[in-house]
Amino acid sequence: MAKLRVSIVGGSGYTGGELLRLLLAHPEVEVVQVTSERLASKFVHRVHPNLRRKTQLQFSPLSELREVDLLFLCLPHGGAMRRIADFMKLAPKVIDLSADFRLQDQIAYRKWYGVEHPAPDLLSSFVYGIPELHRQEMRSAQFVSSAGCNATATILALYPLVKAGLVLKGNVVVEVKAGSSEAGAEGNDGSHHPVRANCVRSFMPTGHRHTAEVYQELALSSELAVHMSATAIDMVRGILATSHVFLDRSVTEKQIWQCYREYYGEEPFIRLVKEAQGNYRYPEPKLLWGTNYCDIGFELDPDSGRLVVISAIDNLMKGAAGQAVQAMNIMSGYPETSALEFSGLHPI
Amino acid sequence: MAKLRVSIVGGSGYTGGELLRLLLAHPEVEVVQVTSERLASKFVHRVHPNLRRKTQLQFSPLSELREVDLLFLCLPHGGAMRRIADFMKLAPKVIDLSADFRLQDQIAYRKWYGVEHPAPDLLSSFVYGIPELHRQEMRSAQFVSSAGCNATATILALYPLVKAGLVLKGNVVVEVKAGSSEAGAEGNDGSHHPVRANCVRSFMPTGHRHTAEVYQELALSSELAVHMSATAIDMVRGILATSHVFLDRSVTEKQIWQCYREYYGEEPFIRLVKEAQGNYRYPEPKLLWGTNYCDIGFELDPDSGRLVVISAIDNLMKGAAGQAVQAMNIMSGYPETSALEFSGLHPI
Amino acid sequence: MAKLRVSIVGGSGYTGGELLRLLLAHPEVEVVQVTSERLASKFVHRVHPNLRRKTQLQFSPLSELREVDLLFLCLPHGGAMRRIADFMKLAPKVIDLSADFRLQDQIAYRKWYGVEHPAPDLLSSFVYGIPELHRQEMRSAQFVSSAGCNATATILALYPLVKAGLVLKGNVVVEVKAGSSEAGAEGNDGSHHPVRANCVRSFMPTGHRHTAEVYQELALSSELAVHMSATAIDMVRGILATSHVFLDRSVTEKQIWQCYREYYGEEPFIRLVKEAQGNYRYPEPKLLWGTNYCDIGFELDPDSGRLVVISAIDNLMKGAAGQAVQAMNIMSGYPETSALEFSGLHPI
Amino acid sequence: MAKLRVSIVGGSGYTGGELLRLLLAHPEVEVVQVTSERLASKFVHRVHPNLRRKTQLQFSPLSELREVDLLFLCLPHGGAMRRIADFMKLAPKVIDLSADFRLQDQIAYRKWYGVEHPAPDLLSSFVYGIPELHRQEMRSAQFVSSAGCNATATILALYPLVKAGLVLKGNVVVEVKAGSSEAGAEGNDGSHHPVRANCVRSFMPTGHRHTAEVYQELALSSELAVHMSATAIDMVRGILATSHVFLDRSVTEKQIWQCYREYYGEEPFIRLVKEAQGNYRYPEPKLLWGTNYCDIGFELDPDSGRLVVISAIDNLMKGAAGQAVQAMNIMSGYPETSALEFSGLHPI
Repeated sequence: MAKLRVSIVGGSGYTGGELLRLLLAHPEVEVVQVTSERLASKFVHRVHPNLRRKTQLQFSPLSELREVDLLFLCLPHGGAMRRIADFMKLAPKVIDLSADFRLQDQIAYRKWYGVEHPAPDLLSSFVYGIPELHRQEMRSAQFVSSAGCNATATILALYPLVKAGLVLKGNVVVEVKAGSSEAGAEGNDGSHHPVRANCVRSFMPTGHRHTAEVYQELALSSELAVHMSATAIDMVRGILATSHVFLDRSVTEKQIWQCYREYYGEEPFIRLVKEAQGNYRYPEPKLLWGTNYCDIGFELDPDSGRLVVISAIDNLMKGAAGQAVQAMNIMSGYPETSALEFSGLHPI
Repeated sequence: MAKLRVSIVGGSGYTGGELLRLLLAHPEVEVVQVTSERLASKFVHRVHPNLRRKTQLQFSPLSELREVDLLFLCLPHGGAMRRIADFMKLAPKVIDLSADFRLQDQIAYRKWYGVEHPAPDLLSSFVYGIPELHRQEMRSAQFVSSAGCNATATILALYPLVKAGLVLKGNVVVEVKAGSSEAGAEGNDGSHHPVRANCVRSFMPTGHRHTAEVYQELALSSELAVHMSATAIDMVRGILATSHVFLDRSVTEKQIWQCYREYYGEEPFIRLVKEAQGNYRYPEPKLLWGTNYCDIGFELDPDSGRLVVISAIDNLMKGAAGQAVQAMNIMSGYPETSALEFSGLHPI
Repeated sequence: MAKLRVSIVGGSGYTGGELLRLLLAHPEVEVVQVTSERLASKFVHRVHPNLRRKTQLQFSPLSELREVDLLFLCLPHGGAMRRIADFMKLAPKVIDLSADFRLQDQIAYRKWYGVEHPAPDLLSSFVYGIPELHRQEMRSAQFVSSAGCNATATILALYPLVKAGLVLKGNVVVEVKAGSSEAGAEGNDGSHHPVRANCVRSFMPTGHRHTAEVYQELALSSELAVHMSATAIDMVRGILATSHVFLDRSVTEKQIWQCYREYYGEEPFIRLVKEAQGNYRYPEPKLLWGTNYCDIGFELDPDSGRLVVISAIDNLMKGAAGQAVQAMNIMSGYPETSALEFSGLHPI
Repeated sequence: MAKLRVSIVGGSGYTGGELLRLLLAHPEVEVVQVTSERLASKFVHRVHPNLRRKTQLQFSPLSELREVDLLFLCLPHGGAMRRIADFMKLAPKVIDLSADFRLQDQIAYRKWYGVEHPAPDLLSSFVYGIPELHRQEMRSAQFVSSAGCNATATILALYPLVKAGLVLKGNVVVEVKAGSSEAGAEGNDGSHHPVRANCVRSFMPTGHRHTAEVYQELALSSELAVHMSATAIDMVRGILATSHVFLDRSVTEKQIWQCYREYYGEEPFIRLVKEAQGNYRYPEPKLLWGTNYCDIGFELDPDSGRLVVISAIDNLMKGAAGQAVQAMNIMSGYPETSALEFSGLHPI
């Protein structure tokens, strides 16, 4: 069978590099082009040194982008929506990894991003990229918008609880601990090593944009609010999201187990991690570096009814490139785990 | 004037070592003895290598402990309460750095520690060790019990809000990010470097014992609940506590500023850290390594009424040894900042 | 074709876990048993949490070990040599990952390990496990002894230079920077996180045992000496070996390039990494986490004739489990890269 | 007695900040001005957040620099030598912390820095800033040039051996492991956290400029060569220099001890660290963060005659600001340890 011909637009950043790593090892895929204006004609391993020997691809300028079967867009936020019509002409299927098409509602977009969306009519054409919520739509989708990394960890933690009606009202507090790769390959004042090393920096205590995705996907009632905060720690990859949910005190641990099993029991990339003891009794992001897993665990305080849900992902994988490849697999009828089998490393 | 003669009981651990470091540099203090059974007759710099050249003290066995003016107890939890009568005979003043005398109520002690307190009559003799709350009592106190490190960071963050009536009801969620020195100098399975490095380990999602101290000191009404969670990160020293508090939406940022200024404006070791920009616009624990500061900042989400309070300390300093020296200074009429002037390092 | 049936003896440590990770993903291999006395009947993912969902294997006690096609021994040093006769009865092929059969000469063994070897007659039956030096013998070998991790990084850096006669005499100084996983899964006083974090600990300035392997494999003349030192840094996986070699000043950079290309040009797991600029212009161990590569680069100081050779590996992969799988592939006629295709991650 | 009035030219970087931290706590010193063009009129704690509450100083532009008793120059390399005549008019004493006046010989300067020195006549007016070598000259010096950080660690390790004639010929190899603060407060591509974290980057395998200082200060004979290499590791502060020296095999460990004791026995900031066991048996840079110590240890391999000397400093302290304050103390007749008493932290 002919391989799926794909290209990556904006392939010099971390998400593009991770995507390229996965696609090069995918048995059904041929990577045709990877674009970068700044690095045009340079070998891709110049900026993705882990790909030395794995490919002799060179970056192409955007102007030379050719038609393919599927296009991945890894442009900086704002880059996809301005040129989306052109990209749609080049490929029948498009997966956008930026924030540009995540929100279905242009009013929400304006509120959280502070600008008018230039292509509001297309917002509803994109399927939101979390397969565990939208697998069925993805099977026939032309356009998919990968979810935000912190949104992914949060939504996957809360979705079964909300859907099952276990949490109905009140305030949910979500604390995200995040690594430095989240901010991308371009250095800035805050990513300077003497500043960023050893840090525990509350960089987004309120107002995190991914909150908009959480509201959209969980379809929260007006009685239920989700509050996100994010703290940067001395780690490159990985997210740990700790969600504090207040349940009716009659809800038992067993019910929570059943709820997660019902929604995720068959999911290839979600593992329920909750053991009585051990250093890895709850999800631990470092175990997930390079994998597409979202590990989810929880602890219930029966006295107060507080449920603490702990979810972990690799922000570049399940939070970006891995999620996108999983979507591609579904859209293309490939085994959903193709090119996503890596188990992760231990110790690390 | 004669120096204050002090000894440290249980001086081989991290808290004892930090205390010794401070006391050796204190202009009004003479360290008479430091005890350790295991290391008796060894030089203290064998386990506190930063004290090479700073002292020629050798560890003494407990059996040789002599009378002094003030005794610091740094025994493992449970060690002080069993022998407290003996210690009280040896010194008119005692500062205990363990958890043994933090709770005034033996029922609370039983609930959170799971054992009966052997000296319940003495519980009320100890002043809880946070000077910002109990300075007046400390001035004439014989016995002080230093607060738990996570409790200290949490209580100092919430105290003004609760006292001023800005927060009246609902759920407060406190997420503590903690370094490895919190668990002490004895290694265990979870402190093995390949396990503990790079970790983001939810080690106490519910049921944290320091919650009992928070309830005691904040005197919470039945309509207000505080929920603590703790996550271990790849850091040796330091705590960042993020407290999520839900306020009436009429409360303004200015009122919160005024509230903190009113309670802490004159405090030598509390700094309000909230700037419009910069990498250090909120409290950052690494800046506090070796200092006695508690830095407090906040961010209000006016839409939802959520207030995020961010507080940072060095767990071995303001969370243990520094707090104890501050108490000693108050009890002895010394300048409160004596031996606690270190500004911290940057970059680090 | 029937799969190769293999078992791992001593599979609860880091090397055993890494080996299991690789073998589970190997298309030609069936893992029959993994032994551990302490953990007998427990699921292997209890200590290898990255293997959750990847296998339902449980540890077996040594007493239940069955016959297989190939046996991997991952026992603590000293464990293989005492029972080697038994192991040889259970499998026609054995790969030992300990130090027990690395040295061909019992006198060298006594000198460096301080004990008499209990099975000296078998020493010469084992092929030293670096494929780049012994591929031909491995093809028909029954017994292979995997090389020490620091020895591997050092030998691969120096082998072409010595063989080609570019370095003939004088002192070679090799400085190894090593991560904490080298010391194994059992914690000790020096692996306690508050001690091991941030450390730059000269733990073996002289007398490193792997020196014996370097002498054996490079067959150094009496005029040439290699001196190793090892420093522990705050890293879990990885080795960077910096070798300082003094050449005749007439030797050019081009000759050195040619030398390495001649010896390693066709090697699937050796990459020459030497670029004019960039953060990854020389080998960087973190890029190799989880891979079987040995990256080698160099810099020549033409004024002094000093050549600095920089080699990097993942100690658990090319320095242990990956090297062993590579040997198994060669011994079994499989593609040499089977199960070793992982490219490594970037950023990390 | 009137305080010494000092100013810092170029005080927004790491060296300037560290210097300011020390000087603010110095009992005999008044800091008059700290200059920065970019930050003129901003509070110094904006970029030195550890100085919050410690000072209300604001940066001044260079044009407003006033006369003082002593001027510290912390300009980027090249900045001092171009304006040195102006600075000399403003203060009778100048301590330059850049590389501009470290080399006495303009030919050496040209060779290692690649440019002509604009003020060669002044080179010999500066005393090289390591007090252990030049204390006597410093007592009456007007101008001091602080030594390079890596040079300081290397020179202090080797000086007694060379002076005592224990090492006479051959190649000395010095491997420096260095933290990220060495490269300064300005971020660059290589200091981006995802790149610099977890790194073991051989950034200067040959050609390190500090080599010139080593040659100058050790006055090496033509038969003795020193070869430096530097590797960046995941650490902010600190240097560990490992020096490999080849001695006559008749030299004993006892002689080496005597040699170091003779030269450094009375030195307030040099500690000989060499114990039979323990995690801190050799120098460990993290123990020195914030201190002015240079810890020196060694291990002799009697078989080969190789001596491994291990020296550690905090690059911003003994390698820069601390060294400069020590020089100021000597130049001004203050106790040499004034403002440099900090013992360092443990654990950290």
